[in-house]
Amino acid sequence: MTDIGSTTSPWDELPIRDELRGKSPYGAPQLDVPVRLNTNENPYPLPEPLVERIAERVREAARGLNRYPDRDAVELRTELARYLTRTTGHEVVRENVWAANGSNEVIQQLLQAFAGPGRIAIGFEPSYSMHGLISRGTGTGWISGPRGDDFTIDTATATAAVAEHRPDVVFITSPNNPTGTAVAAETVLALYEAAQAAKPSLVVVDEAYVEFSHRPSLLPLIEGRPNLVISRTMSKAFGAAGLRLGYLAAHPAVVDAVQLVRLPYHLSAVTQATALAALEHTDTLLGYVEQLKTERDRLVTELRAIGYEVTDSDANFVQFGRFDGEDGAHKAWQRILDQGVLVRDNGVPGRLRVTAGTPEENDAFLDAVRALKKEQH
Amino acid sequence: MTDIGSTTSPWDELPIRDELRGKSPYGAPQLDVPVRLNTNENPYPLPEPLVERIAERVREAARGLNRYPDRDAVELRTELARYLTRTTGHEVVRENVWAANGSNEVIQQLLQAFAGPGRIAIGFEPSYSMHGLISRGTGTGWISGPRGDDFTIDTATATAAVAEHRPDVVFITSPNNPTGTAVAAETVLALYEAAQAAKPSLVVVDEAYVEFSHRPSLLPLIEGRPNLVISRTMSKAFGAAGLRLGYLAAHPAVVDAVQLVRLPYHLSAVTQATALAALEHTDTLLGYVEQLKTERDRLVTELRAIGYEVTDSDANFVQFGRFDGEDGAHKAWQRILDQGVLVRDNGVPGRLRVTAGTPEENDAFLDAVRALKKEQH
Repeated sequence: MTDIGSTTSPWDELPIRDELRGKSPYGAPQLDVPVRLNTNENPYPLPEPLVERIAERVREAARGLNRYPDRDAVELRTELARYLTRTTGHEVVRENVWAANGSNEVIQQLLQAFAGPGRIAIGFEPSYSMHGLISRGTGTGWISGPRGDDFTIDTATATAAVAEHRPDVVFITSPNNPTGTAVAAETVLALYEAAQAAKPSLVVVDEAYVEFSHRPSLLPLIEGRPNLVISRTMSKAFGAAGLRLGYLAAHPAVVDAVQLVRLPYHLSAVTQATALAALEHTDTLLGYVEQLKTERDRLVTELRAIGYEVTDSDANFVQFGRFDGEDGAHKAWQRILDQGVLVRDNGVPGRLRVTAGTPEENDAFLDAVRALKKEQH
Repeated sequence: MTDIGSTTSPWDELPIRDELRGKSPYGAPQLDVPVRLNTNENPYPLPEPLVERIAERVREAARGLNRYPDRDAVELRTELARYLTRTTGHEVVRENVWAANGSNEVIQQLLQAFAGPGRIAIGFEPSYSMHGLISRGTGTGWISGPRGDDFTIDTATATAAVAEHRPDVVFITSPNNPTGTAVAAETVLALYEAAQAAKPSLVVVDEAYVEFSHRPSLLPLIEGRPNLVISRTMSKAFGAAGLRLGYLAAHPAVVDAVQLVRLPYHLSAVTQATALAALEHTDTLLGYVEQLKTERDRLVTELRAIGYEVTDSDANFVQFGRFDGEDGAHKAWQRILDQGVLVRDNGVPGRLRVTAGTPEENDAFLDAVRALKKEQH
């Protein structure tokens, strides 16, 4: 075992960047709890025929594993483009699509190409906290833009923030995480115009949860807008969080640009093979999405009936509250956990977030929050 | 299809970083040629029992693919530590080991944590060009340090360069790519001392090819040296370039530090499952390594017999030349390609690099360079 001896305190002497000193890694607690509704995972395991198809395609890929994978992931990008075309009605082709190890890596590549040192990015918070974290990780300045008390983006306030800060990259998460709030196309268009008026800049619409939305995808807006990017993931609707497959759709020039910063051969042959197998089973997986939308709507209705304040949700999760008093949300989180249900405290004051699980998981959650409500009275 | 119309030239208006404008993506040409000896891939496909084991482990992983993967890759890091302990005789444990999507991502994470804007890294070139490219990609300044005419690192010259530039990160590639040159432990120790004397800084020994070396791994040197990192990959010795699995061994504090910058859940469940399967078959795969070492030595001997100048090689490839005259190496590369054999022109003046393939592939290569030699006389 490597040990440098008791006299040395390695962290003090470790030559890491000053801004990282004393920080903790990002990530939700991975606790062993009966009902895990904390990370917006899809509760439905992949159907067995798809599991077999994955094994089959990976077996084939493994036979050529001594060679580097297709660096440009041509087949996978073609199939992702086909999926987007089919589900949005807007035709995109392989040249419009790029894929990476999770949408986090997509976002990192976009920031490396379009932001980085001396440049700034803006997001409207509370939102997906990785936008800010990856910005900082790539040396990009981060501006926390405003949201209303109801967690929507007010167009006038938001465009004013863009005009003031002149960001290089604008993040718009729709549906938003952790609030569940969808953003209207008009708001996105107004922000795009405001951003371009300030200076040429990239607008990234993060649609990680769009398959669960009441509203259509904003993908068709990329037409005629070369600086608009739609970011997607297979983690949620495809039930494949373990696969780490994120992708984007944009003008082909954006796809060319990220290839200047991507690590060569970033996407393994087994990842490509597994994603291709999952795309063959799109219909089945989108069937689960419909079930989850029904359950999400049930959670909203029931939580309101119990007496909670609930933010309208277009995602596979629901934000609810309010939990007043000092540390109210965290105390409620702990009480729910005590009953065997893990939800998420995203740091939004007085609110928690619950992922839509299976009907049984949601029942367990609803029982827990009903009991909590009674305690509070 | 998305098209913004003929009047717009998207690249001109694309708000990418200025230093990226006009650049091309990194990567060797992926040409369809009978004999591909250009990217240091292992020519031996994985044995069929391992292919089956991969399918089996991935099938199991696919059943839980709706959940995020083990964010800390505990089982995989444990097995990698076991492999390192067994093959180097120096005991390391899971806390010493970190894994990512290829050693490129390992290096990117190290640079994000220990270098980045306002900091600089040094490498001794010609060497693995991704060290410089990823440095630039992370906003790190890059210093091209010296190598001798025989492609070795001269200790006095190199330590003087470190003392002069006071880098935050020092890269030492051993065996070196593309030259094949191993670096003596004494040189590494001298560079480590020089680097720490200048200021606390990280020294990264890239051992991607060490399993092919005549010399033992430098891993034991991490003992008592908290700022020394050994970087490794499963792409070469494990015959798994398509898997994209890189790893490092270092003091646990270094492993803690990279977790501050890694993207959460960066390593997919299928990647972890596939790597674990490969590690079960270590003995078979190291048997292929022995065959490749024999073939590598044969290439060196035969190339010298034909009359080429050959750099001593401790890797699974051989640097040879010289090809004089303007563009001599590139012209020779093309003549060899004309005979159906793809080698690599790494931009080292007058030299080319050939990967050790199967005996048949190496025969085809040797025939091609014999013919080339005759042409030149």
